[in-house]
Amino acid sequence: MNDVTRIAVDDVSDLARGAAILGTGGGGDPYIGQLMALEALETNGPVELVAPADLPDDAQILPVAMMGAPTVMVEKLPSVDQFVVAVNALGQYLGVKPTHIACMEAGGVNSTIPIVAAAQMGLPLMDGDFMGRAFPELQMVTATLFGISTTPMSITDDKGNAGIFSTVSNRWAETLARVVTVEMGATSIVSLYPMRGHQARDAAVAGTLSLCVRLGQAVREARAVHSDPVAAVAAILGGRLIHTGKIVDIVRRTTAGFARGEATLAGLESDAGKTLTLEFQNENIIATRDGTVLATAPDLLICLDVDTGEPITTESLRFGHRIALVAAPSDARWHTPEGIALVGPRYFGYDLDPVRWNEARL
Amino acid sequence: MNDVTRIAVDDVSDLARGAAILGTGGGGDPYIGQLMALEALETNGPVELVAPADLPDDAQILPVAMMGAPTVMVEKLPSVDQFVVAVNALGQYLGVKPTHIACMEAGGVNSTIPIVAAAQMGLPLMDGDFMGRAFPELQMVTATLFGISTTPMSITDDKGNAGIFSTVSNRWAETLARVVTVEMGATSIVSLYPMRGHQARDAAVAGTLSLCVRLGQAVREARAVHSDPVAAVAAILGGRLIHTGKIVDIVRRTTAGFARGEATLAGLESDAGKTLTLEFQNENIIATRDGTVLATAPDLLICLDVDTGEPITTESLRFGHRIALVAAPSDARWHTPEGIALVGPRYFGYDLDPVRWNEARL
Repeated sequence: MNDVTRIAVDDVSDLARGAAILGTGGGGDPYIGQLMALEALETNGPVELVAPADLPDDAQILPVAMMGAPTVMVEKLPSVDQFVVAVNALGQYLGVKPTHIACMEAGGVNSTIPIVAAAQMGLPLMDGDFMGRAFPELQMVTATLFGISTTPMSITDDKGNAGIFSTVSNRWAETLARVVTVEMGATSIVSLYPMRGHQARDAAVAGTLSLCVRLGQAVREARAVHSDPVAAVAAILGGRLIHTGKIVDIVRRTTAGFARGEATLAGLESDAGKTLTLEFQNENIIATRDGTVLATAPDLLICLDVDTGEPITTESLRFGHRIALVAAPSDARWHTPEGIALVGPRYFGYDLDPVRWNEARL
Repeated sequence: MNDVTRIAVDDVSDLARGAAILGTGGGGDPYIGQLMALEALETNGPVELVAPADLPDDAQILPVAMMGAPTVMVEKLPSVDQFVVAVNALGQYLGVKPTHIACMEAGGVNSTIPIVAAAQMGLPLMDGDFMGRAFPELQMVTATLFGISTTPMSITDDKGNAGIFSTVSNRWAETLARVVTVEMGATSIVSLYPMRGHQARDAAVAGTLSLCVRLGQAVREARAVHSDPVAAVAAILGGRLIHTGKIVDIVRRTTAGFARGEATLAGLESDAGKTLTLEFQNENIIATRDGTVLATAPDLLICLDVDTGEPITTESLRFGHRIALVAAPSDARWHTPEGIALVGPRYFGYDLDPVRWNEARL
């Protein structure tokens, strides 16, 4: 199934669409990530993908990501050089040269930024990430479950400011980097979770970059033959359409570097008469229909345009938008007690046990 | 006059009192600094003082300081080892071994913390600082006027978290380190402005540590012979008593890591019938009597107990306290246009030109 062995200019549009799907509403505008990846790949040629299983033990992996509120990034496009700056800042601090670049998150710009860094630096990119979707905070990665430290990490901005943090926990890295990100203008570029090949092999969610390409491709091809792109996405992810509705209310607020909010979807078609509430904190977290919770993080809640199957980020949700909401299972490790403590509904402030999309509530 | 060539256990009490005087209300509780310095000097023996003029060109100076709201530090005593951690974090990042420790600020705990670090590390201490008093923000140092960069700087907390910043300006170092300090629990320990001997010779305000000892000594001796300690302090600093009054109102708020507030002093003795308002932001910034501004930063505004001459920090100001307010000239470089831009009343948010204490308003 995994026949994507490199990312070239022609893959970027599919990959960006797929990354926005796995982004579950977060991760930023996919077209911004697309523009940057195109620029880097046109200049430097394709980027080689390496499966986590094929990483040598002593590979030196330096992941790179954007931190901050995606709503702000729409107005502030990072330069393609800024990602290399962040990776080099960490590499120089550690006194190591990276052999591979990696994504921490499968979603939105954090799937394309590492492509830019890998292309600019002439390095291979790990085909995988450490969430299998998008989550809003640094410590919310499978690497944390494997005892891999967020720090040393670098944090950089577009003005030339840079920092290095070494913290006593991954939660502390999030706390300190978050406030610096806010001061840096609500977004920063970070290189973090430096790790060896054997660590990445254990901790990574494998294949998520090639999965992004396949997802984007499936939507495009389904549209071309007038088949159902929503069904194609659900099938690839082993998930299911849980609600079709029109946005009749949307409330949002950007606080402490996060885009928080709530969308109300009045049911359409077979869901007519039913009202679904979708709560998000950068990503979609909880779907509740007529008082019943249908699904929650860590499982994936994905908003697609009901007609085109195009993924819709939380910052693009608009009144009147007709949405197909797909739920799909997360990486199994998120359903362990340690995983739920890190990314379950209670962490996001809801007095609620996690609800798996496939429980008999639909 | 400068016959203080080392700081020993017996000097600490005088030094701490003098540091609180130069602290102009800020810099934290002098008795906390005193406790830490005593512990370090009892264990390690006296610390040698080196005049800035005697620093070799290639001396490697690593200053160390506490950052944050002194009101919080009263409840959270740092360990004596934390200062060495901050200095070593910066030294290791730079790949240098310090030859001298220095104070950035003459005032409160930031005069005693470098003594602790020097004692623990067995290094000499520069007899001077880069303010000649206390100021609330990192960039407010004579070093900034000489183009010396705040960064690379280290920032550490009592839990074991640490950061290194490299910023494009000294103001950016303040901005980023301030928010990290707030998250670290409202105080942090920083090592910053790494510099060479020739830079320190140019930029330092010379002799301020030995001045602290002489000031503290003068208060103690004046009390012993029932002479006037307030007059003794004013004479040493080339300043003058500008108001004697009783605190009849005090408003304070700790915001964004600063202790801000305002005290109202109803005049006593020859000032009876006159009301003075003292505005502070960690340090005393503006003294206004009956609508006339008597003196402002950068000149020194010092609150002393009217009877004992003991300095009173802004966090210790209490209703009913009887205060002698002394004004004294700052280092002349603060009165240049560049100096006023950095530490004049407008920077602190007042629509006001600086007023020198000796102008004919008294």
